[in-house]
Formats: sequence, C-alpha cells, structure tokens
Amino acid sequence: MIVVMKPGTPQKQIAEVVALIEQLGLRANRIEGTELTVVAALGEKRDGAKQALETMEGVEKVVPILAPYKMASVEVKREPTVVQVRNLTVGGGRLGVIAGPCSVESREQILEVAHIVKEAGAAGLRGGAFKPRTSPYSFQGMKEKGLELLAEARDATGLAVVTEVMAKEHVELVAKYADVMQVGARNMQNYPLLEAVGEAGLPVLLKRGPSATMDEFLLAAEYILKTGNQKVILCERGIRTFEDHTRFTLPLASVPYLHEKTHLPVMVDPSHGTGKASLVATMARAAVAAGADGLIVEIHPHPEKALSDGYQALTPAAFREMMLDCRKVAEAVGLRM
Amino acid sequence: MIVVMKPGTPQKQIAEVVALIEQLGLRANRIEGTELTVVAALGEKRDGAKQALETMEGVEKVVPILAPYKMASVEVKREPTVVQVRNLTVGGGRLGVIAGPCSVESREQILEVAHIVKEAGAAGLRGGAFKPRTSPYSFQGMKEKGLELLAEARDATGLAVVTEVMAKEHVELVAKYADVMQVGARNMQNYPLLEAVGEAGLPVLLKRGPSATMDEFLLAAEYILKTGNQKVILCERGIRTFEDHTRFTLPLASVPYLHEKTHLPVMVDPSHGTGKASLVATMARAAVAAGADGLIVEIHPHPEKALSDGYQALTPAAFREMMLDCRKVAEAVGLRM
Amino acid sequence: MIVVMKPGTPQKQIAEVVALIEQLGLRANRIEGTELTVVAALGEKRDGAKQALETMEGVEKVVPILAPYKMASVEVKREPTVVQVRNLTVGGGRLGVIAGPCSVESREQILEVAHIVKEAGAAGLRGGAFKPRTSPYSFQGMKEKGLELLAEARDATGLAVVTEVMAKEHVELVAKYADVMQVGARNMQNYPLLEAVGEAGLPVLLKRGPSATMDEFLLAAEYILKTGNQKVILCERGIRTFEDHTRFTLPLASVPYLHEKTHLPVMVDPSHGTGKASLVATMARAAVAAGADGLIVEIHPHPEKALSDGYQALTPAAFREMMLDCRKVAEAVGLRM
Amino acid sequence: MIVVMKPGTPQKQIAEVVALIEQLGLRANRIEGTELTVVAALGEKRDGAKQALETMEGVEKVVPILAPYKMASVEVKREPTVVQVRNLTVGGGRLGVIAGPCSVESREQILEVAHIVKEAGAAGLRGGAFKPRTSPYSFQGMKEKGLELLAEARDATGLAVVTEVMAKEHVELVAKYADVMQVGARNMQNYPLLEAVGEAGLPVLLKRGPSATMDEFLLAAEYILKTGNQKVILCERGIRTFEDHTRFTLPLASVPYLHEKTHLPVMVDPSHGTGKASLVATMARAAVAAGADGLIVEIHPHPEKALSDGYQALTPAAFREMMLDCRKVAEAVGLRM
Repeated sequence: MIVVMKPGTPQKQIAEVVALIEQLGLRANRIEGTELTVVAALGEKRDGAKQALETMEGVEKVVPILAPYKMASVEVKREPTVVQVRNLTVGGGRLGVIAGPCSVESREQILEVAHIVKEAGAAGLRGGAFKPRTSPYSFQGMKEKGLELLAEARDATGLAVVTEVMAKEHVELVAKYADVMQVGARNMQNYPLLEAVGEAGLPVLLKRGPSATMDEFLLAAEYILKTGNQKVILCERGIRTFEDHTRFTLPLASVPYLHEKTHLPVMVDPSHGTGKASLVATMARAAVAAGADGLIVEIHPHPEKALSDGYQALTPAAFREMMLDCRKVAEAVGLRM
Repeated sequence: MIVVMKPGTPQKQIAEVVALIEQLGLRANRIEGTELTVVAALGEKRDGAKQALETMEGVEKVVPILAPYKMASVEVKREPTVVQVRNLTVGGGRLGVIAGPCSVESREQILEVAHIVKEAGAAGLRGGAFKPRTSPYSFQGMKEKGLELLAEARDATGLAVVTEVMAKEHVELVAKYADVMQVGARNMQNYPLLEAVGEAGLPVLLKRGPSATMDEFLLAAEYILKTGNQKVILCERGIRTFEDHTRFTLPLASVPYLHEKTHLPVMVDPSHGTGKASLVATMARAAVAAGADGLIVEIHPHPEKALSDGYQALTPAAFREMMLDCRKVAEAVGLRM
Repeated sequence: MIVVMKPGTPQKQIAEVVALIEQLGLRANRIEGTELTVVAALGEKRDGAKQALETMEGVEKVVPILAPYKMASVEVKREPTVVQVRNLTVGGGRLGVIAGPCSVESREQILEVAHIVKEAGAAGLRGGAFKPRTSPYSFQGMKEKGLELLAEARDATGLAVVTEVMAKEHVELVAKYADVMQVGARNMQNYPLLEAVGEAGLPVLLKRGPSATMDEFLLAAEYILKTGNQKVILCERGIRTFEDHTRFTLPLASVPYLHEKTHLPVMVDPSHGTGKASLVATMARAAVAAGADGLIVEIHPHPEKALSDGYQALTPAAFREMMLDCRKVAEAVGLRM
Repeated sequence: MIVVMKPGTPQKQIAEVVALIEQLGLRANRIEGTELTVVAALGEKRDGAKQALETMEGVEKVVPILAPYKMASVEVKREPTVVQVRNLTVGGGRLGVIAGPCSVESREQILEVAHIVKEAGAAGLRGGAFKPRTSPYSFQGMKEKGLELLAEARDATGLAVVTEVMAKEHVELVAKYADVMQVGARNMQNYPLLEAVGEAGLPVLLKRGPSATMDEFLLAAEYILKTGNQKVILCERGIRTFEDHTRFTLPLASVPYLHEKTHLPVMVDPSHGTGKASLVATMARAAVAAGADGLIVEIHPHPEKALSDGYQALTPAAFREMMLDCRKVAEAVGLRM
C-alpha cells in the first residue's frame, strides 16, 4: 500500500501517517520525491488500514498494491481448475458448451431442445425455472415444475443441467435437480446467495455483473471459494456501456485477462452479451478464439414463440452451424471441444 | 409498439407480422413509408408480444412506446407520495435528511453520532448492521447487535432508524428494529428481497443499482409497489462510468427526470455518489438545488477510525456546515428542510 | 512513480529495473513487502520512463504519483484565474452566464435573442456560425455571415460574443468577430486547434470531451496554457454513459473536483448535459449550487423552428425564470451573479 | 419518424403536430392506441423535422426509423468494398495486416521493423510521424522526417505505408508519402479533416472514437464518402467504459454488426483496444474469428526503449507467433490472409 501525500504537506502530518501505519501493525517506509512524499506501508493487514489512511490529513490518495482476492489467484494455485460433471468438461484445454432455452416453457419444448443440444454435440442443457425478470409483469418461470422437466430432459439425454438459483431459500430445492447452479448477473454481489450455493457443493456458474470490475468479479468468486467449494466457473456475459446497437457490450479481453490472474475456468455467454440472434454465432467463434473454456448459448426451436428473450435465441439450424464453426476455431487455437 | 420492417422486405413477411399481431390480440396498423414499412401494434398486452415480433423474419426492430412501469407512474397517481415516519418527512416539498456512519461499530459510536445528527437538525439515523462488502475479508457488520444499538440510539434521540436489509431471511428481524428498510444498490434487482421488504410494510429506501437505467429502477420499485406497500423512496447514489476521479458518477439529472415520471420521492446519496469526503457537502447542496426530496449522508465522529468507508464520511463539523448550507439552498428553491 | 513487481520475480529482473531507473536519471528506492517488491522511481523526468518501465520483464504495473498537468495545477498558481471580457466575468466568486441559440440562423433571430439574453441579466451571447454536425446532411451553420451577425448583436447589446471555432484555418477569421473562442467537445483533443486558439490570445472556452477523464481535460487545457494564453475557461458539458433518458450524463462533481485541482474557472452547460429542455433549468440551479463559475445555456425564441438542437433550447420565458432561480441559489452559496 | 404523444394530450396539440408534419412536406399518419396517440411522419426530409417535432407541446419523444447514414449503407451498395493498395488487400474475404511501431523513431528502427513485418507476412507498415499525444510534454513525432523514413522503408520492402494525419494543413504533405491515411480516434469527428482526407483521394483508415456510437461512426465515414472517395476502411479500436484492467474495452461485436449495416471493410486494432502487450495476440485471433477484414498491430523491436506506447507493443517474436495463429483461425472461418 502506497500512501501519497499532498505536495507541501507539513512534516507533522507525515509523521502522523507513519505513526498510524505502525499502530496498525505495518511497517512504514518513507520516500522523499522531488515534489512530494510517499509512504509505503508494508505487511499483512490491509482492509481497515487503507480506509483509515485515506482519511488522514495531508493524504492525497492511497494506492493498493496487492490484488484483493486470494483463493481465486494464480499465486495460490497455478494449475487451471477443471470443472467436470457428467459429460461436461470446462477448463484445462477442454471447451464445454451449454445450450438451451432462456426459460423452460413446457415438457415438449425442453425435451425437443435437449435432443437438439445433444445431437449438435454439446454437453450441458440450460433452461430457467426461476427467472429474474426486470418487470414484475413478465413471465417469472415455471419454478419447481420447470426443474422437474429439466431433470426429465437430463434423464433422456445425459446432458448436465445448468439452471439459475435466484434466492438462498431455493438453493436446496434447485440443488436436488441441477448439475450446475447458475448465479445470474443481477445476483453477482448477493453475498448470502453466493455463500449458500457455495455450501451446497455443486459446481457454480457465476455470471459477471454488468458493471462489475474484474476485482469485484473475482471477489464474488472468492465468497464461494471460501466455503470450500472449488468448482467455480466464471462467465463473461457483457457489460453496460453507452453502446446501443447491442444489448450489452461483450468485452472478450476479459478471457485472456482472467486466464492471467485466476486458475478458474472462464466461459462466455454470447447471447446476453449481444442480445441479437444474428450476432451470437460470430461472437461464439470469437470467444473460442479468445481462449474461452466454455460457451453458454440460448437456443429455441421456435424463437418467435419464446416466452422470454426470443430475440437472442438461435434456431436449431443456426446452433448446429455455430457448433461446426466453433469446432474448427477450437482446433485452430488448440482447444478440444 | 412500432414494428420496423427492413427495407425491401417481401409483402409476405409483412403480412405474417400483421397476422401475428392480430393473433396476439392486438390491432395492426400498417404504414408505408418512402423507404420502408412500419406496423403499429395497438392494444393492452405487451410483454411476450414484443419478443415474439422481434424474432420474425424481415423485422429490423421493435420500438416500445409505453413506459414499462405502471404503479410508479404519474399517469396512475399525480400527487407526490410523501413518506413520513417519526419526524422524518420525505417528499411533497419537504426535504428529509438521514445521516450516520457507514457501519454501526459500537454503542459509544452510534450514540455519539445520533446526538450529532439530531443536533444538526436531521431526522433520520443511518447505520449498517448487515453490511454487503465487496470482499469477503472485510468487516461484515455487527448484525443483530448492531440493530439493537440503532434502536437504543433511536430511543435516546427520536431519530428514525434507516438500515439495510441484505437478504429475505433477515427481513423479519430487521423490521423489528428499523423505521425504514434500505435495499442497497447491489440488491436493486434482487426480486425476492424486493417482494419481502414490500410485504413487511415498512417504508423502503430503494437505492439505484450502479448500472440501472431509469426504467429498470422504476420497475424495481414496481416490485415493491405491487405488494401493496406504497411507501417507497427512490435513492440516486451514483452510476458506474469511465470516470475515475470519483468512486461513482453522480448524475443529478435523474432527480428532475424522476419527478417528471413518478410520484415517488427521490433522495440523493452524495457520499457513495462521490466517494470522497471533500466533495460530499458540495454535491449535497447541488442535490438540494436539483429538487431532491432528501439526502442520505455518511458521517463519522472519527473517520480515520471507521471500520468501513471512512474516506467518504463527513466529520461532525463538516456535516453541521453542510446542513446550514443546504438549508439556505432549500429556501432558495422553495423546499422545506 | 511506483514500479510494482510481480510476486516471485527473480532478483535479477528487479536489479534490471533498478538499473533502468538510474539510467533514466532517476533515483531508485527499493521496498520489500511481505508478498512482493516495489521500486519507487524518484526525480523530475517522467514521460518515457513510465513506458519503458512498464515493458520490463517482471513488472506488474507502474503507478504514476504526480499529476501529469503542470500549468493548470493549483500547485503552480493558487489564486483562481478570473476571465473577464466586456461585462462577462467568470471565476473568483463571480458567475458569468452565456446564453443564445445553438446556431445563428438569421439577423432577426440573433438580434431578438441578444436582447432577451441581455434583459434577463446575462453577459455573454452564444451562437454557432461554424457548426460541427454529426451528420453531413445537417445544417452546417451560416459561417462568416453568422459571425457578422453575432458582431452586430454585440454592437446592439454590449454582450460578449462566444462562438465555436472548428478548424485551425478558421481561427484568424473567428478571432476577428468573437470575444471568446469556444473549442467544442469533439475537438477537445484536436491539438493543432488548441495551439492555434491559444496563440490567438482571446479567452478560450474549452469543452470537456464526452469520454475525457479529468487528467485528459486538464492536459488539453495545458496545450492552450503552454502558448502563454492564461484565459482558459473549462466547461463541463456531460459525458457518454449507459444512461439513455438524457442525451449525456451531467456529472456535476467535476465542478468541486476541478476547483480542488486547478485555478481555472469551471463553467457548466446544462443544455448539452441533459439534451432535454425540461431538465435544463433545474440542472442550471444545481450547477450553481455545485459552485460553477458560469453557465452556458441554449435558448431560442421559437424552439420548434430551430435549425439545430431545438429540443434542448429554453424558451425566453423559461430562461428568465431560470435566471431568477439561479440568482437565489447563487446568493445562498455565496456567489455573485 | 414516429412522434409519440404524451398520454392525455389534448386533440388540439395533436392536430398541431399533424399540421407541422404536413407543413414540413411530410405525410402524417395518426394512430390511436389504448393509452396514447402516435403520429407517423412519412417522406424524404428528415433532419430539421425531428428537431422541430421534438419541441412541440404534448410530444413525449420522436423515434427515428431510418438509419441516418446513406452512402455507407448496404441499402445503397450490397457488394463489399475492397480496399487494395500495393500488396495490402482489405475486405471481400481478404484479411490485410498492418503492423509497425507506434512512432517512427529513427531510420534504423523503422527499417528493422519493416523487414520484420514483411517477413512475418503482413502487407502494411504503420508508424506515426505526426503524433497526437494527450500530454503536450510527450514526444510529438518526427514529423516530415518521419514520413521520409516511412517512404524509405516502403521502397526497401514494398509494404504499403499507413500513417496518421492530424490536421487539415498536413494532408497534402502526408499524401505525398503515405499509401493509406489514418484518421485517429481523437479526430473521428473532426469534420474539416475528414473532408480534406476524402478529397486527397487516398484510401482512408478511419478509427472509431472511444465514445462513438455505430451511427456516429458511419456518419463520420459518410463525410469522407460524400467527397467521392469510396476507399474507406473502418477500424474498431476500443471504447471508454468503466473497465480498468484494460486501457479501453474492445467490443468485437461491432465487426459483425458493421458487416450487417455497411459495405465498408472493418479492421480491428487490438493494441489500443487492450493497451496490454500480453493480451494483444489473443484479441487479434478473436478479431479474425469475428470476421475482421484486417488487423493493425503495434510492434517494436525493443518495446522497453519505445518513445511511446511501448507497453502495448508486441516483440518481433510475439508478432510472428500471432501471425501464425491468426492464419489458422482465418482458415477456420474461411478468410484469406
């Protein structure tokens, strides 16, 4: 932690900063520059210290040096984490594809989709049973009935079921049916939920919040890792920016960046990341080329009849073509799919 | 809802769009422009319709015309909603001020602060007992003990207690102690929580999420209003942008904009909105001039010893000065404080 | 400048960083932390140094400590710069108001507006003669004829004329007619233009680019200051964010922030900052409460007939009311208007 | 253009809107919805009309239906534009690669780089002679001497020279030496410059401004196309967002989006788009998979000695590896490189 003093700060105030650093159990190292003084604070304890120092008189700013996350860091674990459940493998050079409708809508729909997903060569089935919807007037999902249908589709196909859990009080129920529990973008910083899914022990697909920094994203993962559950898949799904030609802006550089910083696998969601069916397959290919460990894609047998988000769903034909293209790109960059 | 067709779309596809509109129980009104055709879809039902139309062949885009929220709208209720609890009045030309520490830290601290708040002329006491923290390694709050101390401070001063509830399973507990329940920015789209606080019946202070649009913010309020609880205070607390000289960007135009669209009162949080103590009082004044119905401000008797967010807390002296200044600005713009 | 080394960097690489720092004519101060090493680089020279160090092996990041601007800084000049021309005074506790149409459209229009502006008590007349328009198909301004009309309006009223210059090759021409030369947001980083307006010697109104940071804004001012021209007025006019209910997001915290960092006066443009006539007057009041040294506002006698930007122009009546309200707020916060 | 009236607007105001539409030479088509009225305005003329209508009483908003650009649109020209100069071919299924240093620094440097570029299989040489720098204290380029060195490097290698022109008054000079003139991100809306480079007749590489929407980007291209110069290459180079782990956010979805809307080729700059050498090659691969028609990449034989932007430059070895990888991805997606 580097404490930058304002130019012209009296010696007395600098001395007080040094004193506070030592009082906090850290070592202070004072450095006189040409125009101002900085004080390095060295040692283990950090959280309260930064905040206390920032409020001292004469302090311009406090620059943290260490990354705030620990268990998610490559410093702690160098080998990539691989999440495996049924035939779905994510990470370590293996690219796992999860596909399915935004919402489970009926027995016919989810079984039809599951067979399409399987035949196209994907290993995971997505489908929302509990749906977080911006408007209280929108379809809120089939709830437990939807979970039962997902389980039936899994029995019929062997696909791993990936579904969102929106509330701590549903974790136990969802865990009975799901193979992977998804925490949605709106809940990335719902800490009681993160702890509860962590404790449930299933693999967790954690979506990036649309205004989350990388540090905030990894700290959210840290809440899960701290429960002892190491099976966390990060998912880039787009951020809020000024761009209005897509629903969100999909910043694929987060894939190689996260690979530098964390051992956790990184998936990409090109459906929410663009919000336009016509852009999804191309961005799926780009995500693979960026080194993504997985894809999660919305498809629907009849997008125009979807109860939610049909405008970003691929048709079965478009999905099959996407799979063929992604496989070629995966080979080109040395990933197995 | 206006369906814009791509230039050169065959008549057959336009006819299919018209047919779908009618099938959805809406009336279709076809308009031929010089370069393209648009079809207006008229009637009550909206949600699934937009999505279905967006996925039809030949459709360029679907432009919604009606605001998606209802109960929050000035169309439904023209007179401003006034939230009143103990001596705190927010809305209808009355400006309510809530102040206090980021976190309740000890009996001495919260009682000392409460007296400062009261003597400076504010009517609400804020203080976190359950703290949502970005890092799992940060101080997480005193929990129920903190709530008890807040209640003790209320008994000593008559201030209304405003405190955050982070999880549905804490609503009952927090409701026993709080006068106003705060839903934090991270939880603005935690729908089960919104419904639970709505049902608890206490006034709710709903903070804007850092990447929420105005429509999303008002739809979050709608989740609460739908439970029958009308006592909702909206709170602008800053958004995520590229700016890095402040912690968030505080967009005060949301105050007059919301006053045009909703009857709900609008409060401003200049502490989180700037993240810098030296900017808080000035932005509090600006918020009052923008017509805010209330302010929520972090203060601390000893900011450098705060367990959280000390860098944005006002000292007691700075807070008293802020109150004097805000009172003058309030008078200048015709608000009572 | 603080060079942060990656954890586990070999001593050899650290030694190379130290050697490079010394080779660059700086002093190196090595600090061993618990988990990693940082090296402080002290001395005058900075620009190439940071970049060179960032590319060395083992370097995690380089954190600059000093502000990159100099002549704009309060370190160099503590007393506020006051820009005065005709009756317009901006800065030093005096609030100058500039108003007028987006574009000069005709002799009648600009003379009518000028009298309205003067009678309402403002001292500057704005009006575009050279118009930077997003679309090449939009009205591009009356050019020199517009400048002549502005000069005629000045002769009739005594108002100071503020008008935009879009290109270096127009500087001489515009300088013949204008009292203040405006550099628009799109040109904030048009460096040849900044140098040319600086050399012309007239006061310069420099608008913030919609994605400029505060450092970039002040460095753009620095290009002008470096020519020896000290009469620079900074103007906050809104930034590009995800918000779509306003044309731009108007971040008023830049006013007190800039007052902490620079001696230059800071004006606010609530017309472009909101892009909606109904929000302009309220945000003008808020800007005054935030301590702005001036306002620049678009007005039009008949907004619905404006050739550009009519939707954000105040009517004469609304402008007069705005002036009355702003005067009251200015008094409340101790500014003279 | 759709004019949305406020709910409850009196008939008289609606009639006035209809009258204005007709007065503007457009046809009005009135549509009564359940809650409000909209009026469609049909016909050719658009610019002033939208603005005039927006300011009428009772108007909630005006929704444009047609894209504002024309000559750039696929409506006007369906077959992709291919820009070819020397051995560099960009567009129409051919991927052109341009590489070189941020700045031309010396004869040795640029000749060394040119040979590296050529041997790795790229066809364009980039290098700044006139450098737009955020700080007036940074290296501003070698100017004409730099242009001469670029021409010498071209003579030695046959590479096409791509270099930035920052000011209208330099266009003639730069055109003497360059094969492609680059308009930088800061100048995307410098309209006099756009017109001047258009008139010079050379191919133009137009970089997206960091806060430009797609419509603004295509309208900037339109300024060039309007001069009769059709050889415009669009270049995505990253946008300003809240993300701070990269210098800009590189939104690759703009590649397939632009391919839907315009016939102009689309290039990607992963160097500025990430600002970190370690992420550049991966994002170059991703750009190819997204269907980019070209890449422009910063390389430097000795990044740590670069006079500008060394932290984002690839070493020669890293560039050669990038070329091999991109070639494989290009084959996988059916592009020739």
